[in-house]
Amino acid sequence: MKIKSLGLDNIRSVEWKEETESIQLIDQRVIPFRVTFVHLPTVKDVCTAIKDMFVRGAPAIGATAAFGMVLAVKEANNQPRQSRKEYFDTLFSDVLSTRPTAIDLSNFAREIYEVALKTDFSFDEALKSATFLVDKMVEECKSIGESSCDHIKDGDSILTHCNAGPLATIDYGTALAPFFKAKEDGKEITVYVDETRPRLQGAKITAWELEQAEIDHKIIPDSAAAFLMSKGKINKVILGADRCLKDGTISNKIGTLSVAVNAKYFDIPFYSSFPWSTIDLDSESIEDFKIEYRDEKEVKYVTSFEEEMLIANPQSNALNPAFDITPPELITGYFTPDGVLSLEKLNKKIKMIKKYKKEKLFSSFNDNNKSC
Amino acid sequence: MKIKSLGLDNIRSVEWKEETESIQLIDQRVIPFRVTFVHLPTVKDVCTAIKDMFVRGAPAIGATAAFGMVLAVKEANNQPRQSRKEYFDTLFSDVLSTRPTAIDLSNFAREIYEVALKTDFSFDEALKSATFLVDKMVEECKSIGESSCDHIKDGDSILTHCNAGPLATIDYGTALAPFFKAKEDGKEITVYVDETRPRLQGAKITAWELEQAEIDHKIIPDSAAAFLMSKGKINKVILGADRCLKDGTISNKIGTLSVAVNAKYFDIPFYSSFPWSTIDLDSESIEDFKIEYRDEKEVKYVTSFEEEMLIANPQSNALNPAFDITPPELITGYFTPDGVLSLEKLNKKIKMIKKYKKEKLFSSFNDNNKSC
Repeated sequence: MKIKSLGLDNIRSVEWKEETESIQLIDQRVIPFRVTFVHLPTVKDVCTAIKDMFVRGAPAIGATAAFGMVLAVKEANNQPRQSRKEYFDTLFSDVLSTRPTAIDLSNFAREIYEVALKTDFSFDEALKSATFLVDKMVEECKSIGESSCDHIKDGDSILTHCNAGPLATIDYGTALAPFFKAKEDGKEITVYVDETRPRLQGAKITAWELEQAEIDHKIIPDSAAAFLMSKGKINKVILGADRCLKDGTISNKIGTLSVAVNAKYFDIPFYSSFPWSTIDLDSESIEDFKIEYRDEKEVKYVTSFEEEMLIANPQSNALNPAFDITPPELITGYFTPDGVLSLEKLNKKIKMIKKYKKEKLFSSFNDNNKSC
Repeated sequence: MKIKSLGLDNIRSVEWKEETESIQLIDQRVIPFRVTFVHLPTVKDVCTAIKDMFVRGAPAIGATAAFGMVLAVKEANNQPRQSRKEYFDTLFSDVLSTRPTAIDLSNFAREIYEVALKTDFSFDEALKSATFLVDKMVEECKSIGESSCDHIKDGDSILTHCNAGPLATIDYGTALAPFFKAKEDGKEITVYVDETRPRLQGAKITAWELEQAEIDHKIIPDSAAAFLMSKGKINKVILGADRCLKDGTISNKIGTLSVAVNAKYFDIPFYSSFPWSTIDLDSESIEDFKIEYRDEKEVKYVTSFEEEMLIANPQSNALNPAFDITPPELITGYFTPDGVLSLEKLNKKIKMIKKYKKEKLFSSFNDNNKSC
């Protein structure tokens, strides 16, 4: 990822720093107003950073959790040998409980947890595995852009919701990866960016990332998307996912369902874009989803820098469901590291992933990749 | 309308004040944070108040325009006789051009314009006519609540969008009138209030009005409505309209179309509520609608009191369409002063209104009213 204003050309939103044995991440809470790097030297810091949304976006949370588990190995090694496992289990459970929706978090944390148990708490092995998972994720995001390039046409007007760009995904992005590739290939596209209330990840983060990449874009209120669809201004919807069930149902930022229903009504293709770690292999149905309700303050106040402003009747209560659930009948296709898949092809891939899971978690299925 | 905090029991959002020959209105820009009364002694003040949204809501804008034309008669009478008509025409055109969407504005202003021409610029006749129109509107809003009472059941969970309450409609409200009547009748209802970006009329004004009336309500981000519908939390949608075409198409606050499409998908009845002055007898089709695009600042900044805060990437542009268009196939019925009408019955009423229009504009069609 490029950050023009700092002259940085090749930076990840979440990185392991050897010299300080800590995680470096870009504080997403103050984007676009400032670019601040935060260092997390302890598991406690990692949990705070995830809970308080210094870092957000399913893959970026996953990466933070993976490196967080590396720190957990380090901290467990400082314990007396007989209490090491118990202490490590507590740290693991602390990491798991930070956010309930992003499946990447538990997938990544669990992977490092298992490596630690298998290798008698080897710090080096844990770090090697976390680095592998994170590098793999970055490669997958790059592949999403490359393998979907035929689906983005010169002149496309594409709606996206929330943020599934480099900050949310370590690098490249999931929903945004195809836009960067299109730009690289010289295609002219316009991106309509849902501002994404209540936390405004679209207006603040996606808009900032598209600006950095010099891609033509316009921020819109979430509720204006239907109107633009009705006027023929949007010919495609591409957004991310926080979790994808085996049957192709996705859970994603609140508002995704509304966009999907409107896209269906106005006959506009609707795509969800994600790496393999977003697949939830265990949940059977949407009944297994627990929707995260966040503090009503996020609706009643907005923040800019560290200031906040009340924008609602103070005596009223607000409801703040953070995610919603979109069924596969509303989804035209899935942007994946293996290209744009139909539900049928996605189902086949998921079966393959499940089959090979025991041998090598999140192994490469990128044999079909092609370049434009 | 009651304003608990000021101990006011019977106040209108727009009123003519005899003693100062000016219009008194409640400054809606600072609700819910303050209740401030503004006085408009000149047509110029009236135009500013409408343009800068001291007053908003189709009927309240209509009332302000009607009394504004009374001020125009007064100002025209201060001109030399030979230039009076020309001067008056300019003022009329100034009033008409303040906001493009609310049909009440032009309906009401035109009515007083014609009275002035017929009565050789009689101030008393203009004031009498404006008062008649405004009183009639208040009665119509009251009738919307009374005649629709069978449609609101004990235990209903109703979604509303933007604001169609007393502030927007002089008194009682259109979409909100049935809620106040239900409360009066001892029914327990819950109202989900779309915050209504970008100007947050739901979070600020509707929530404040419902709080004054002690009606249970919850503010939600606009994009959360679909999720609540999918979970069976909403069993009815009632919102206003800024304009209703002869064929039953409505134009209303941006986001209305999205709500309507979602309500259709989740099989939830969707109602638009308005007085007769909201009917546009002249437009043939939606092609005649000019959608008002407002300043992108309304999307990129939020305001509270007189402060404003940037909430988007400063280098990005935003698009701010203020209204959208909802076709009749998405509308279950229309809450009117004559009760809840099907499209067929609405069409009949519109034909009757058109037929009698030349004799007496907006004459009473309230012969079917019934009380619960």
